[in-house]
Amino acid sequence: MPNAAMLVIGDEILSGRTRDANTHYLAGELTKIGIALREVRVVPDEEEAIVAALNALRAAHDTVFTSGGIGPTHDDITADCVAAAFGVPIDVRDDARALLQTHYDRSGTELNAARLRMARIPEGAALIENPVSAAPGFALGNVYVLAGVPAVFQAMVATVLPTLTGGPPLLSQSLRIERGEGDIAGPLGELATEFPELSIGSYPFQQDGVYGAHVVVRGTNKAQVDGAMVRLARLFGT
Amino acid sequence: MPNAAMLVIGDEILSGRTRDANTHYLAGELTKIGIALREVRVVPDEEEAIVAALNALRAAHDTVFTSGGIGPTHDDITADCVAAAFGVPIDVRDDARALLQTHYDRSGTELNAARLRMARIPEGAALIENPVSAAPGFALGNVYVLAGVPAVFQAMVATVLPTLTGGPPLLSQSLRIERGEGDIAGPLGELATEFPELSIGSYPFQQDGVYGAHVVVRGTNKAQVDGAMVRLARLFGT
Repeated sequence: MPNAAMLVIGDEILSGRTRDANTHYLAGELTKIGIALREVRVVPDEEEAIVAALNALRAAHDTVFTSGGIGPTHDDITADCVAAAFGVPIDVRDDARALLQTHYDRSGTELNAARLRMARIPEGAALIENPVSAAPGFALGNVYVLAGVPAVFQAMVATVLPTLTGGPPLLSQSLRIERGEGDIAGPLGELATEFPELSIGSYPFQQDGVYGAHVVVRGTNKAQVDGAMVRLARLFGT
Repeated sequence: MPNAAMLVIGDEILSGRTRDANTHYLAGELTKIGIALREVRVVPDEEEAIVAALNALRAAHDTVFTSGGIGPTHDDITADCVAAAFGVPIDVRDDARALLQTHYDRSGTELNAARLRMARIPEGAALIENPVSAAPGFALGNVYVLAGVPAVFQAMVATVLPTLTGGPPLLSQSLRIERGEGDIAGPLGELATEFPELSIGSYPFQQDGVYGAHVVVRGTNKAQVDGAMVRLARLFGT
């Protein structure tokens, strides 16, 4: 199965000011098309940290998504860091500038020096459309550089995903079992050994005095997933 | 300022089934006591990935917190991975077993082999109390191994944080500016240059047709933070 990683860039996530929403969204969308999200990193708005994380992730995974740091302010340094990571030059590019010019002309807003920073694109990158606020993301090698604002991030993900080659979709079924995890753990472990190609996870819950676990069976082979679910139901008969 | 990293362990986060809540909670708590969260990684329930991430993070940061993977089921492998990362043996420990025995005796639940796995503690670790469901976390070197269930994670964080040496608390003030980021970016960048010890971040918003940015000034020196806020208010007079 093709795999992917996510790099979240932003002091505001690490300080606790903002709760990252993009990772959870991307995780769900990738799962639907059969791409396994294998690693996430969150780093501050600092060149050294961004470049090191990006180079580690793009070497280890088929595809890398970044979110954040592509706006017009001084703390938006993602595009420059991506250029540095790839060792390519970066400058204002005409096609990106034209997108911004059209957008700002429509509202009578000046395309000043700060806004023009959003047209700085590393050499060799392909633009990713931003239907919300015009400033484009871009793809370079196996790295997709997307906005941090969730509405824009999601729009860009919708543009990018159909261009990627997914694997067979990851099927998922779950069973709610109202017993302590400690009671089901033994037989569950044996079931996991019996179905080595499936991922079988147990997620405890406690709600209104009822406790138990959701057991989730994931895999790409429908017969196997179904088979494991039948065994699960027999083991913990509900 | 002392720094920290967070390692979130769990397939359920990467598949999109569960949205991680622990990172955001920890980030806020660390900020309050003057410890900078500098990096977060999310990895699957796989030994190689967990050990590699843990070793990278504990070498690079003063303190590392992990969440997830310390329950009784087959996919709970965090304790064994921590032992492997530190190169120390791991086995059921009497004090941890006693905690579980007391807890399960109270409810007439059997301390079976699966539950006993939660008493496996790497050699040399100190236990971290779990007031919710008894199974302890543990501290080894600069690594704090906590539960993934948010209520338990938060209780463990409350136990651990008072034992850490924080720095001066990070002060934070913000100004809501109802102008496009592109309009404020120039002067804001100059202000950031003028106050190199402060972190000045700009976070755009768009709500009910009003758009603008929250500018957040962070630093440990109150006079500097106040000074920057006065300059901000003059620049973007509100």
